[in-house]
Amino acid sequence: MTTETTAKDIMHSLGTQAKQAAATLRMADTRRKDTALALAAALLREQQDEIIAANDLDMQAGKKSGLDAAMLDRLALNDTRIEAMAEGLEQIAQLPDPVGEISELSYRPSGIQVGHMRVPLGVIGMIYESRPNVTADAAALCLKSGNAVILRGGSEAIHSNRAIAACLRQAMRDAGLPQDAVQLVDSTDRALVGELIRAEAFVDVIIPRGGRSLIERIANEARVPVIKHLDGICHVYVDAAADLDMAVNIAVNAKMHRTGVCNAMETLLVHAAVAEVFVPQVVAALTAAGASIRGCPRSCALAVGIESASDADWDTEYLDAILSLRIVDDLDAAIAHIAKHSSGHTESIISGDYAAGQRFLREVDSASVMWNASTRFADGFEYGLGAEIGISTDRLHVRGPVGLLGLTTQKWIVLGHGEIRT
Amino acid sequence: MTTETTAKDIMHSLGTQAKQAAATLRMADTRRKDTALALAAALLREQQDEIIAANDLDMQAGKKSGLDAAMLDRLALNDTRIEAMAEGLEQIAQLPDPVGEISELSYRPSGIQVGHMRVPLGVIGMIYESRPNVTADAAALCLKSGNAVILRGGSEAIHSNRAIAACLRQAMRDAGLPQDAVQLVDSTDRALVGELIRAEAFVDVIIPRGGRSLIERIANEARVPVIKHLDGICHVYVDAAADLDMAVNIAVNAKMHRTGVCNAMETLLVHAAVAEVFVPQVVAALTAAGASIRGCPRSCALAVGIESASDADWDTEYLDAILSLRIVDDLDAAIAHIAKHSSGHTESIISGDYAAGQRFLREVDSASVMWNASTRFADGFEYGLGAEIGISTDRLHVRGPVGLLGLTTQKWIVLGHGEIRT
Repeated sequence: MTTETTAKDIMHSLGTQAKQAAATLRMADTRRKDTALALAAALLREQQDEIIAANDLDMQAGKKSGLDAAMLDRLALNDTRIEAMAEGLEQIAQLPDPVGEISELSYRPSGIQVGHMRVPLGVIGMIYESRPNVTADAAALCLKSGNAVILRGGSEAIHSNRAIAACLRQAMRDAGLPQDAVQLVDSTDRALVGELIRAEAFVDVIIPRGGRSLIERIANEARVPVIKHLDGICHVYVDAAADLDMAVNIAVNAKMHRTGVCNAMETLLVHAAVAEVFVPQVVAALTAAGASIRGCPRSCALAVGIESASDADWDTEYLDAILSLRIVDDLDAAIAHIAKHSSGHTESIISGDYAAGQRFLREVDSASVMWNASTRFADGFEYGLGAEIGISTDRLHVRGPVGLLGLTTQKWIVLGHGEIRT
Repeated sequence: MTTETTAKDIMHSLGTQAKQAAATLRMADTRRKDTALALAAALLREQQDEIIAANDLDMQAGKKSGLDAAMLDRLALNDTRIEAMAEGLEQIAQLPDPVGEISELSYRPSGIQVGHMRVPLGVIGMIYESRPNVTADAAALCLKSGNAVILRGGSEAIHSNRAIAACLRQAMRDAGLPQDAVQLVDSTDRALVGELIRAEAFVDVIIPRGGRSLIERIANEARVPVIKHLDGICHVYVDAAADLDMAVNIAVNAKMHRTGVCNAMETLLVHAAVAEVFVPQVVAALTAAGASIRGCPRSCALAVGIESASDADWDTEYLDAILSLRIVDDLDAAIAHIAKHSSGHTESIISGDYAAGQRFLREVDSASVMWNASTRFADGFEYGLGAEIGISTDRLHVRGPVGLLGLTTQKWIVLGHGEIRT
C-alpha cells in the first residue's frame, strides 16, 4: 500500500467520523457544550504533568532538529501556559451560543414570516504550526459553535497536541457528546494535509494558521473553501490635520507593541504638510523604542538615522522592529499607496479632519479600517468576539478577525399558515 | 497565436477594465447608480426594435442549430419581455442601496468604537445560458450593489445580449459612471469561460446559472470562489398532526405551480398515521392537476394510478410534472430521508404540532426550512430581497436566494480617540 492510499484511507475515516459527530453536535444544547468546555479545562489542569512531559519530548526533538529559539519558545509549554489554555476554554464557555439564534423574522405580503436561523458550518479542518495552545483554542471555538473539527498541528508539536486533544476528547465523552467532534490527525505524514484540503465530501472549510508559504500552498491546492490571510502589511497614515502627539503615540504602539504579529504597522505614511515637524519627532520616538526605519528620499532628508528604502520595502511584512516611512503629498496619495501596497488587513488614519477621516473609512478597502486608533486593535478580543480562530483577508463569508460567528452560517426559515404561491 | 493565448489576452483586458471600473463604482453615490438604472430602462424601451432584430438573428440561428422548443422560448424576446426587463431595472433602482451602511457600531472597553461597513465584493463573473433578460437583471443588481460585472451569456443569445449590454453601457456613460463596470464577453469561444473562472487576479466571485452540467464543470475547474446551486430536490413532509386540506393544497402548489424550477417539490413524505386518509386525497388532487406519481410500495397499496418508484427516484430532480411519494414511520424517518436525499435547497413540514415543527426547523439542514408553507416561496422576491441574482446551496458567505446583500461584504471600522494597545 502506498503512502498516498494510506493517507486517503485515514482521511476517509477521520472525515466519516467528523461528519457523524457534527450531525449530533450541531443540535447539542448550550449547557452540554459548556459542560464539556469546563471539563476540558479541569482535565488540562489535572493532567498538567503529563502534558508537560509530552511537550518535553517535542522540545527535545525540536532542539535536536535545530528549531530556532523563536520556534522553540512558541512550542514550549509550562504551568502558566497550560493555565492560560484552561482559562481560555472557560472564557469560551461563557460566550453566548450563536447556534439556533433566529433573527430578522418578519411578515411578508404573502402572509409568510421569513427570517434567519444561525447554524454551524459543519466540519472545520484546522491546519497550524508550532503553538500547541491552538489545539485547545480551535477545538473549543469549534465545539462552542457546534462544529466538528479535524486538527492538523505541526509535526514538531505532535506529542503536545496529542496530550491536549486527549483531554478535549475525554471531556466530550464525559459530557455525553461525541468525542469524534474533536479529532487530531495523529500522524506527521505530509500527504494527510493534501488529503484534508481536498476532502470536499467531509470538510466544509479549512482554516490554516502559520507562515505565508504554508498558507499559500494550502490556498493553491485546496478544493475545500479556505478562510485565510496571507500577509499583514498594515499602514498608518498621519494626515495634515493629525494631532501629532497622538500620531507619535499610535505609530510607536502600532509598530513596537508586538513586532511579530500580523496587525503591526509596517509602513508609516506622512502628509507632506506636517512632515517637517512630525518626521523628526516620530523617528526619535521609534528609534528610542528600538525600531529601524527605512525611509523615502524626502523623509531621509528630514531626520538622521533612517536608511534608504528600496522599492521592495513597500511590499514587505517585516514581522520585526523595522518599518518603512514615506511622505505623501496628500490624502489621495496616501489612499493610492495603500491600494497598491496593502495586504488588505488593517489601515489607520490619524486625523482631526472630519472629511479626511470619512473618506479614508469609505475608500480604503481593507478588512479593518481605523480612524485615530492603533492597528494593533485588529483582534478578536478587542473587537468583542471573545476569541478568534484566525483572520481573513478574503472578501467572502468573513473578513478580519474570525470568531464564533465566522464558524456559523444562516439558513432561511419560513413560518406559514398554509400559504401557497399564486 | 493559439486560441488559448487569445482567450487569456481577452480576459486580461476585460479583467483589468473591470477592476478599474469597480474601484470607481464602489464609491459612486446611490443617486448616480439609480440614474444609470433609469436611463438603461429608458434605452431598452427606446431600442426595442433593434433588440428584437438582434434577437431574431439568435432565434434563426437557434432554429437552424436545432434548439428545442423550451430553449427557443427562453431565448425569445418580444415587446412584453423587453418591457418586463425595463421594469425590472426600475424596481432595482428603488431598492435601498446596501453600500456604506454602518451597523453594530458599539464602544469596547478600550474606548474604541467597533462596527461594520457594508461594501461591494468587487468584480462579479456571471455565466449563464439562453435567457437574455439575465443580462439586464444581473448587470442591474451588480451595478446597484457597486460591483463591476463581466457577463458571459450563452453563444445562442450573443446578438440579444450584445444589444442589451450596449443599452446598459450607454446608460452608465450617460450617468457619468464607468461603462466598463458592465462588460459582455463578446465572443462565443468556450476557452473564455475557462479563463474567467480562473481569473483570481481580477474576479472576486463567479455566479453560474444554467444546467447542472455547466455548473458542475465550473465548480470543479474554478479558482475563483463560486456561488451556486446544483440541484433542487425539495421535500414536503406531511406530519401526523397536519391539517390535511392544507397539506393537499401545499403539495399541489409546491409541485404544479411551476414544474421546471428549482424550488418545486420533488418528493412528498407522508407520516404513516395519516397515510391511509391522506394518500388517496393527495394522489387524486395531484393527478387531477396533471402530475405523475412514483410511490413507495406502501403508498402504491393506498391509491390507484401510482407507478412504483425506483431507488433513483429519491435522488432525482424531475423538473417536470412528476413527483415521488413515500410513507415514513415518523418525524425521525422523515428527517433522515431528507438528510440522505435532499440537495439542501428547501424543505417544508406541514404540521399543527409545535414540537414537530420546532424540531423540523432546527434539525433539517437546508438553505430554506419551512413550516406550513409551499416550497415555491424560496425566492428572492418572496423573501423580500427585491430581486435575486441566483440561489446558493453552499454553506459559506450566502445561502438560499442571493440578492443585493449577497453581492456585498462587510469591513470592520474602528473609530478611536488616540487609543493604543497596552
